[in-house]
Amino acid sequence: MLEALFNPSSVAVIGASKDPRKVGYAVLDNLIKYRYPGKIYPVNPNAEEILGVKACPKVSEADGNVDLAVISVPAPLVPDALLDCAAAEVRAVIVVSAGFKESGPEGFTREERIKAIAREHSIRMLGPNCLGLINTANNMNASFAGGMLPKGRISFFSQSGALGIAILDWALGNNIGFSKFISLGNKTDLNEIDFIEYFAEDPDTDVILGYIEDVVDGHRFFQVARRATKVKPIILIKSGGTEAGARAASSHTGALAGSEVAFNAAFKQTGIIKADGIQDLFDTALAFSGRKLPAGDRLLIITNAGGPGIIAADTAERMKVRLPQMTKSSIDAIASLLPPTASLYNPVDIIGDATSERYAAVLQRAIHDPNVDGIAVILTPQAMTDVENTADIIIEAAQATDKPIIASFIGEMRVRNSLEKLKRHSIPGFIYPETAVRSFRRMYDFTVWQHRFEEPPQTGTPGKEAVAGIISSLLEAERYEVGEDSAMEILSHYGFTFPERALARTSMEAFAIAERIGPPLVMKISSPDILHKTDVGGVKLNIGSALAARDAFMEITSNVKRLMPDAFVEGVMLYEMIKGGKEVIIGVTYDRTFGHMIMFGLGGIYVEVLKDVSFRIAPVSHNEALSMINEIRTSALLRGARGEKPVDIEAIVECILRVSALVTDFPRIRELDINPLVVMSRGTFALDARIIFERPK
Amino acid sequence: MLEALFNPSSVAVIGASKDPRKVGYAVLDNLIKYRYPGKIYPVNPNAEEILGVKACPKVSEADGNVDLAVISVPAPLVPDALLDCAAAEVRAVIVVSAGFKESGPEGFTREERIKAIAREHSIRMLGPNCLGLINTANNMNASFAGGMLPKGRISFFSQSGALGIAILDWALGNNIGFSKFISLGNKTDLNEIDFIEYFAEDPDTDVILGYIEDVVDGHRFFQVARRATKVKPIILIKSGGTEAGARAASSHTGALAGSEVAFNAAFKQTGIIKADGIQDLFDTALAFSGRKLPAGDRLLIITNAGGPGIIAADTAERMKVRLPQMTKSSIDAIASLLPPTASLYNPVDIIGDATSERYAAVLQRAIHDPNVDGIAVILTPQAMTDVENTADIIIEAAQATDKPIIASFIGEMRVRNSLEKLKRHSIPGFIYPETAVRSFRRMYDFTVWQHRFEEPPQTGTPGKEAVAGIISSLLEAERYEVGEDSAMEILSHYGFTFPERALARTSMEAFAIAERIGPPLVMKISSPDILHKTDVGGVKLNIGSALAARDAFMEITSNVKRLMPDAFVEGVMLYEMIKGGKEVIIGVTYDRTFGHMIMFGLGGIYVEVLKDVSFRIAPVSHNEALSMINEIRTSALLRGARGEKPVDIEAIVECILRVSALVTDFPRIRELDINPLVVMSRGTFALDARIIFERPK
Repeated sequence: MLEALFNPSSVAVIGASKDPRKVGYAVLDNLIKYRYPGKIYPVNPNAEEILGVKACPKVSEADGNVDLAVISVPAPLVPDALLDCAAAEVRAVIVVSAGFKESGPEGFTREERIKAIAREHSIRMLGPNCLGLINTANNMNASFAGGMLPKGRISFFSQSGALGIAILDWALGNNIGFSKFISLGNKTDLNEIDFIEYFAEDPDTDVILGYIEDVVDGHRFFQVARRATKVKPIILIKSGGTEAGARAASSHTGALAGSEVAFNAAFKQTGIIKADGIQDLFDTALAFSGRKLPAGDRLLIITNAGGPGIIAADTAERMKVRLPQMTKSSIDAIASLLPPTASLYNPVDIIGDATSERYAAVLQRAIHDPNVDGIAVILTPQAMTDVENTADIIIEAAQATDKPIIASFIGEMRVRNSLEKLKRHSIPGFIYPETAVRSFRRMYDFTVWQHRFEEPPQTGTPGKEAVAGIISSLLEAERYEVGEDSAMEILSHYGFTFPERALARTSMEAFAIAERIGPPLVMKISSPDILHKTDVGGVKLNIGSALAARDAFMEITSNVKRLMPDAFVEGVMLYEMIKGGKEVIIGVTYDRTFGHMIMFGLGGIYVEVLKDVSFRIAPVSHNEALSMINEIRTSALLRGARGEKPVDIEAIVECILRVSALVTDFPRIRELDINPLVVMSRGTFALDARIIFERPK
Repeated sequence: MLEALFNPSSVAVIGASKDPRKVGYAVLDNLIKYRYPGKIYPVNPNAEEILGVKACPKVSEADGNVDLAVISVPAPLVPDALLDCAAAEVRAVIVVSAGFKESGPEGFTREERIKAIAREHSIRMLGPNCLGLINTANNMNASFAGGMLPKGRISFFSQSGALGIAILDWALGNNIGFSKFISLGNKTDLNEIDFIEYFAEDPDTDVILGYIEDVVDGHRFFQVARRATKVKPIILIKSGGTEAGARAASSHTGALAGSEVAFNAAFKQTGIIKADGIQDLFDTALAFSGRKLPAGDRLLIITNAGGPGIIAADTAERMKVRLPQMTKSSIDAIASLLPPTASLYNPVDIIGDATSERYAAVLQRAIHDPNVDGIAVILTPQAMTDVENTADIIIEAAQATDKPIIASFIGEMRVRNSLEKLKRHSIPGFIYPETAVRSFRRMYDFTVWQHRFEEPPQTGTPGKEAVAGIISSLLEAERYEVGEDSAMEILSHYGFTFPERALARTSMEAFAIAERIGPPLVMKISSPDILHKTDVGGVKLNIGSALAARDAFMEITSNVKRLMPDAFVEGVMLYEMIKGGKEVIIGVTYDRTFGHMIMFGLGGIYVEVLKDVSFRIAPVSHNEALSMINEIRTSALLRGARGEKPVDIEAIVECILRVSALVTDFPRIRELDINPLVVMSRGTFALDARIIFERPK
């Protein structure tokens, strides 16, 4: 679909210029200088030829078919240029001109205009306000960036043009190969999702890299990324992430959510690898550019230096990378080839005077050893070290195995060339041993992701129709925030269980109900106007007798009368009191990019003080629900820490899935808290719940 | 004291050789080649001259005074060489020869021998089994490492020679200046502590860097480091840190401790900056090489690129670095100098077409703005960017201010030279914005450390003599592990309060005591043989009456009889039951390097499941005790989370100080657990305690 953008047979530069200070000069110059093989049409009404190429006044007057046009005329002239492209049946355009929505209201209107034109004429558009695009596979530099990327198999899109330029400079200086580079600009038409989709299919791309500040369509992003990571790794920086806390929020779940939380959940659920910063982006890209993934998490470290070996082993332990010994036959074999002071286990220390033969001896065994899933080769440039030969030995070993080999050559002067050689042979080569081990962990995580069990989606919910009725009458009555009673009614149609209960309108009724249900009891004020019942003295626990229930009725109602005299009080609800079990919270909040997000955590201080919660974008699968439970730091408490009985984890999973189904069935739910949900050793009880609906706009 | 080592007026090379493959050649060659200015004596009985310098057969036959000797003869010849040095009154030696304790029992004996010789003759010795030493200040390369470090103000010691060589290569390649480089080798005489002490006073050293695998004398290390960090930063990698968990441990505290925990505590208490890896070591060294510390935590970011500015701001938020706005007058001033699309707040975005003048305009205001403690200047090499001029502008601004300015020039080709220029002018220059911000945080942390309040040590404890008596009778009776009763007795002399209690020997006594103390009560088996009372059914809570106490007595004793029939049972202890309050744990464990370590955590699951604890080396100060409490994630629970009453934090501090005094007074205490200590809104109660003493060897 984006062939016209990446592989056009001809490119027009609208606004091509003879003035080297103009963007229209730089774009044309880049196309010519880096030998774009197709036809080039400079478009400029005031020139016969530019840079030795015959110019034409309009694209529609070019003497041939134009696939792609790069538009660099001043913003006010862009709409007409675009209309002319439509007339010439141009299929794709890159608008590098600035002066659109980034520049104020007038620009905003102008951007709407070009968006409409592009859509009407089915022209795919990159930009506006972007640097352009580079495809090294066909030598096309359709950008005004200075320099051309080395050829390679990493493709990169950036929502920051400046960062794109910096990365270009970095790639040139470090000789890192790229396949495609895209400056996204204002993302008026084409955005990150289109390029993820394209790169996933692109035979010249092994690794997808990106810098984004937002996502245009959360739902599509989610679907496309999830498909793409089946095929190749996506590594992204999402910046502007730490805004959480700035949001006003009216529920526990809302207070703990936020855009960074949503993106983290989305990345987890789509297998996108999140980079912590620019350096991490580069390092991780390098790790995956080797195109080999470890089958397991067992890393063998080979080193000619004890200290760096220990640093690598420390990192491995911190990152939960296993450091196996090789099989006995491998160890015996290398023992005969290494000096007696060598360490044969892991790290394998071949000692400071090691030449490349010793590296070769261990590598030869390691690549065939069944205990080893990947190898980190550490080198320090000591007196006897033949750095370049060692690089060659690694390249040779890598060609003979599917296991990833990662190098750490510590230093600069004596190791630089060899590190570059390794990279040219698609072997991840780092300076620092800690980076090498971290990279292995990232690769293994991706292995796990790619081999995960894909579950069929959950199917229809029996209670859906009944709930549809309840919700529409609530919304008709303009009740957008509902507490216990209505929330319970809705949730019970989705399979939630509640303690036995009944409403007392008088203290005598309270007495009678208490006698029927039997102590101990809980009593709570029932009022549509009161969301936080405890705050108004509206809750009493551990009621031990019918008489106590009668007194509690009077106490609760008088508390409420005093503190919220205007609240409409229906009465006091009496509940069977649930003893034992563990309190958890299941909540839902609504993220403006990704929609409903489900939260799970242990009740009380765990959520409020420790903020020990997990989030996933809805709908969630059974495995995702389970991973939400396992992810919190306190999950051991559910599994029976300190000799307690474990609770019913599967029942919690079921509850999460039911909430997921409910909010997916009814998108107008904006927030939901089931707090607490008491989990017993078998089954659960929801003790309180509330739901907030979207208000009409 | 180490002047003879670093600034000798003459150096002998014992084992100097004409054979370029020999270490004795490399050392001599390095001394000559890099123009060591003092007198050089090659020592070799079989040569008249080596490398053009007159040789002598023995040091004692040199025709002048020898301050320093570098010994590179084979290990068996080292003792004699050393004796000859003694005869010649050589004051310092560097033994580069290997073949000592690292090579087996024979080497171990040999090392003991040279240690004794050095000590007897008051010769200070570096090594054996080391690379040697480099001092760039006097052009002395007394090592066999290839190459010479660029001059600078960082001094580095390394327990790994190979890592030393790698760092040398790295420093050469990156043009990073060093003052001194020391390969520690086996640390037979001189070790990391001696060099920290020396560097702290050394006028040519601004930053102390080191790689260590162990510490020879924890107590001295602690004292020396604490003094040194008053003057300059120490940045260390301690490797081999993650062994925790491998240790068998018999108490909660012991299970959570470990060598890494001890080093982390020691680093915290001495102000040493812990590097996470080799890269972090380098980055942090660079940050401090600027010799300027921020007065506060407010960082102004100036950038010509939006994306990297956001990444820097994200990092700042994560690292709790504040991003202030400049004062109104500064903002007004820069507004008139920047284009209308610039962002004037923080990050100050001077837009992609910024030349160095715009950087200058903002920097000029920022260095004088009272809201700004430090400045991060971010640059991406865009078309209009004059990278070198911007570097010059930064250098100029830095010369006019005491505030640290940190640069992030993202890229490689176009920014490399300018980054080097910045470094030459002592301005920390990084590629990545996240590293720049992290560095600022590190610098600010060191400011806080240097300005901390130094407390006078705690003085004498009144109960010390009484406890001395108790402990000696326990140890005489060979009772090395004591539970509740003896532990309580000891602790009460150090000011701990316990609930009222009395021992019942019969069920009738239990009845009588229960009547006297009054319900509710706790009852626990009393036996010197039972450490974990709950496990044998030896504990009952919430005894509501004297009759119930009688029954509980019978139940507990029969439980114990069944499960531990051989235990000697003194009876059942009845306690006043403490209601309310929060349970915490104070523990002590013994680290082989640093001695007693105190642990603090919240009781129950917080310690066992969350492992949410803090450690400090004893003795601790009031502020350190307070920071132990603040450091745990759950400390909010003590301060009254969720509307609860806060507990008496000051009383916990007091308890930590008392435990600290106790173990300092009685070093034979090896482990101690006060678990739980119940903290009320006023005061504390210790409910259970045990102490383990060191057994005789």
